[in-house]
Amino acid sequence: MFVMDCLSVNEKGHLTIGGCDTIQLAKEYGTPLYVMDETTIRNACRAYKRSFEKHYAGKGLPFYASKALNCKAICRIIMEEGLGLDVVSGGELYTALQAGFPANKIHMHGNNKTPAELRMALDAGVGRIVLDNLFEMETLNQMAGNLGKKVAVSMRVKPGIDAHTHEFIRTGQIDSKFGFALETGEALQAVKQVLAAENLTLKELHCHIGSQIFEIEPFVQAAKVMMDFMAEIRKETGLAIESLNLGGGFGIHYLTSDQPQPYDRYMEAVSLAIREKAAEHDVPMPFICIEPGRSIVGEAGITLYEIGGIKEIPNVRNYVSIDGGMTDNPRFALYQSAYTVLIADKAGQRADYQATIAGKCCESGDLIQKDTMIQTPEVGDILAVLSTGAYNYSMASNYNRIPRPAIVLVRDREARLAVRRESYEDLIRNDL
Amino acid sequence: MFVMDCLSVNEKGHLTIGGCDTIQLAKEYGTPLYVMDETTIRNACRAYKRSFEKHYAGKGLPFYASKALNCKAICRIIMEEGLGLDVVSGGELYTALQAGFPANKIHMHGNNKTPAELRMALDAGVGRIVLDNLFEMETLNQMAGNLGKKVAVSMRVKPGIDAHTHEFIRTGQIDSKFGFALETGEALQAVKQVLAAENLTLKELHCHIGSQIFEIEPFVQAAKVMMDFMAEIRKETGLAIESLNLGGGFGIHYLTSDQPQPYDRYMEAVSLAIREKAAEHDVPMPFICIEPGRSIVGEAGITLYEIGGIKEIPNVRNYVSIDGGMTDNPRFALYQSAYTVLIADKAGQRADYQATIAGKCCESGDLIQKDTMIQTPEVGDILAVLSTGAYNYSMASNYNRIPRPAIVLVRDREARLAVRRESYEDLIRNDL
Repeated sequence: MFVMDCLSVNEKGHLTIGGCDTIQLAKEYGTPLYVMDETTIRNACRAYKRSFEKHYAGKGLPFYASKALNCKAICRIIMEEGLGLDVVSGGELYTALQAGFPANKIHMHGNNKTPAELRMALDAGVGRIVLDNLFEMETLNQMAGNLGKKVAVSMRVKPGIDAHTHEFIRTGQIDSKFGFALETGEALQAVKQVLAAENLTLKELHCHIGSQIFEIEPFVQAAKVMMDFMAEIRKETGLAIESLNLGGGFGIHYLTSDQPQPYDRYMEAVSLAIREKAAEHDVPMPFICIEPGRSIVGEAGITLYEIGGIKEIPNVRNYVSIDGGMTDNPRFALYQSAYTVLIADKAGQRADYQATIAGKCCESGDLIQKDTMIQTPEVGDILAVLSTGAYNYSMASNYNRIPRPAIVLVRDREARLAVRRESYEDLIRNDL
Repeated sequence: MFVMDCLSVNEKGHLTIGGCDTIQLAKEYGTPLYVMDETTIRNACRAYKRSFEKHYAGKGLPFYASKALNCKAICRIIMEEGLGLDVVSGGELYTALQAGFPANKIHMHGNNKTPAELRMALDAGVGRIVLDNLFEMETLNQMAGNLGKKVAVSMRVKPGIDAHTHEFIRTGQIDSKFGFALETGEALQAVKQVLAAENLTLKELHCHIGSQIFEIEPFVQAAKVMMDFMAEIRKETGLAIESLNLGGGFGIHYLTSDQPQPYDRYMEAVSLAIREKAAEHDVPMPFICIEPGRSIVGEAGITLYEIGGIKEIPNVRNYVSIDGGMTDNPRFALYQSAYTVLIADKAGQRADYQATIAGKCCESGDLIQKDTMIQTPEVGDILAVLSTGAYNYSMASNYNRIPRPAIVLVRDREARLAVRRESYEDLIRNDL
C-alpha cells in the first residue's frame, strides 16, 4: 500500500510507523519531526549481509555510507548489526567514535581530506583510508612515517561507468572531482606510486558509479572493469589486491512507481561476474565491500509537519504550507526530488486534492513537492513526507534561523528520542 | 578592480579586505572562513538612509532583511545604524532580541508563522506583523484579544510584477506561496477582513517583487500598482493606510559584468512615481519602508578556503578542491549562482587558469563555480570567493557533518570574531 513497508493505517485512520500512531508522535515530540523505523534499518542491514552469505560465501562486508544520516544512535544500530561504517569527514568520524564504533571497521573517504582529518583518522586507527588524489597520498605517507605507522589504504578509481541517473549525483565518469581515471592510465600510475610509498599498504580498490540507481547492469559492468584492472595491476606489479569496494548507489522507493531491485539480485549478478573474471584472469576472488547509505535508512524515515495555511489560487495551484521545508529537506530545492506525501490523520482516505507543499522559509523555491495528490487538507492536519530517512537530517540547515527537528526512533510500538530538537539557544551558541 | 570596494592587494600581492591581509586572517582564524567588512555594511545602511532624506524628505525607513545574514553582531551593527530589522522566524527574532535590538523596530514576516512564533512576536512587542494569509490573521486576532492587545499589522500583497530574475527567487506573481493576490480581488477582500478584526490595526501594505534585480522599472511599477490599490482601499473603506513597504530585491555585484544600480536611482524614480500617484488619487504620501538584505551584506563578505588538491583532467576540466563547499555556500548547487573567485595569495597576478572549484563534500554537485578563471593554483594556496556576505552563512548546513566556519568582522585594519567556528562537540550536542 505504501512506498515503505513499516507504514500502516490504524483504526483511527491515522498513519502509523513501526506500530506508532504518527499523530501521537507529533503531539508528543512536536513538529516538524523526523521519525525513523529501527526495524527497517536493521532489516536492510541484515538483507545485505545475507546476500553476501548466499552469493559470495560471506567473503565481504557492507559499509554503511553514513553521509546519508550520521548520528550517534544510527552509528550504534549499524555497529550492533555488524556492518562497517563509511565516513567522509572528521565530523562523521568523531560522531562514530563517540558512539563507540570500532575504528578498525571504519573507512575514511573524501575528495579533499584535510591534514587534520588524516591525522585524526591515523590517531583513531581507522581500518582504511580511501585515497582520492596524490597530494593526500604524499601527506599521508609522510604523516604515517612520522608516527612510525604503516597505513592500510584503498584507492578510489573512476571506472568510467555512466549510470543513468541525475547528473549531479553521477560520479563514475572521468569528469568528476573524485578518484583516479582508469582510461587515461592515471589510476595505474597512481597505484605504482602508492606501492612505492613506504608507509602505505594498498589493500583495496574502490569505485562508486552514482546514486539512486535502479539497474543492475552498471554495477556488473563496474565489477568487470575493476576486476580487469586488478588483473592488470597484478601483471604490472605482481600485487594481488585483496579487496574490491564497489561503492553504493542502490535506488529506493520515493514513489510507488519506483522499481528498485532487491540487493540480492545485484549481489547475485555481481558475484557471477567476479567469479568469471577471476577465472578468466587467474586471480584470486577479492573480498567485496559495498557502501549502501540511502538504501539502509531512506525508506525507514518519514517527516511529520503541521499544516499552517492553505492558499488556493484559482487556475494556478494550491499551496499547502507546513512548519518546515527546505531547511529540514532541501532535496526538492536542490534536485527537484520526487516524494510521496499524505495527510497522516487522513491516511485511510483517498488522495483527491492536488497540492504544492510549501515550506515556511522566506524563499519561493522552498517547496517540498509540486502539484502532488494528497487527501483534502485542513489547517492543523499533520502532513507526512515519506522516504526521508536519507539526506534530510544530514543536509538540514538553519536557514531563516529555523531550528532543526528532532529524530525519533520507533520500534515495535515504542518510540525513543535519538536526536533532540534544536533550541533557539543552540542557534546563537557561537554568536559573540 | 574588484567586484567589492573593500578589497585591495597589498605589497605582498595578497588580497586584503578592510585593510586586513586575508592570508594573515586565514592563518589566525583558520579556513574556511567568512570575512565581512563592517565599513561596507555601514556604508550601505547609510546610503539607503541618505536616499530617503534626499528624495523623500526622510519619510521612510529601510529594514534590513536579516534572512540574508542574521547573527548577533550584524543585528547590533544594523541597530547602531538606525535601520529597522525584518525577521522571518522565531529564531531570527530571538537572535535580534538577544542582540538588544529594539522590538518596536522589528517587522515579523513569514508565509507560515506558527502560533508559537506569533505569540513570541506579541510578547516581544514587535513593531509590525506582516500578515500573509487569513488563517494567521484569525489566530493573531484571537491571540491579541486574549492578551488584551491591539496589534499593528501589515499585509503582504502580490502586485503581479514579473521581475526578470531566476524563477526560484521570483515572488511577485500570482503563482506564489506568499501574500494575497491583487488581480483576483483576494487582497481587497482580505483588507476588509483585517479591518473587521477588532484586535488588529492595519498600518501598512507590503509587496516584494523578487531578488537580485538590476532594473528600476519593476520597482516603479510595483509602487504604482500599490498606490492604486491604496487609493482603491480608501475609496472602498475610507482607510488611508499610512505606510507602504516595497520590499527588497536590489541586485549586487557577483561578477564585474553585473550592473546593479545605486539605490539612489531606485528611490528617485520610486519617489517620483509615488508623488504622482498621490496627486492623481488625492491620497496622502505614505511612509515608505524597504527591505534590503543582500545589498547590505552581500558585497561586504568573502569566504577564504585552503586548496587541498588539484585534479587536471585532460580535455575535460581542472578540479581545484577546497576545504569547504556546498556546506558553507550552497548557492551554486541550488541556483548555479555566479561568483568571482581568485587566489588570495596571488591576487596581483593574472587569472590565466581555468578551474572548477570543488567542495569537500561527498557529492558531485558540490561545486562553488564551474570553469572560472583564477590564478594558477597550488596546494596550500588560499582561495577567496567574493560577494558571499549574503545567503552563505545563513544557508549553511552540516552536511557530511562538516562544522560551519567562523565569521570575522574587519574594519580599518582590525579584525574581530563575530561568530565562533563550530566544533565537533557542537555537531553532536543534541545526539542521544
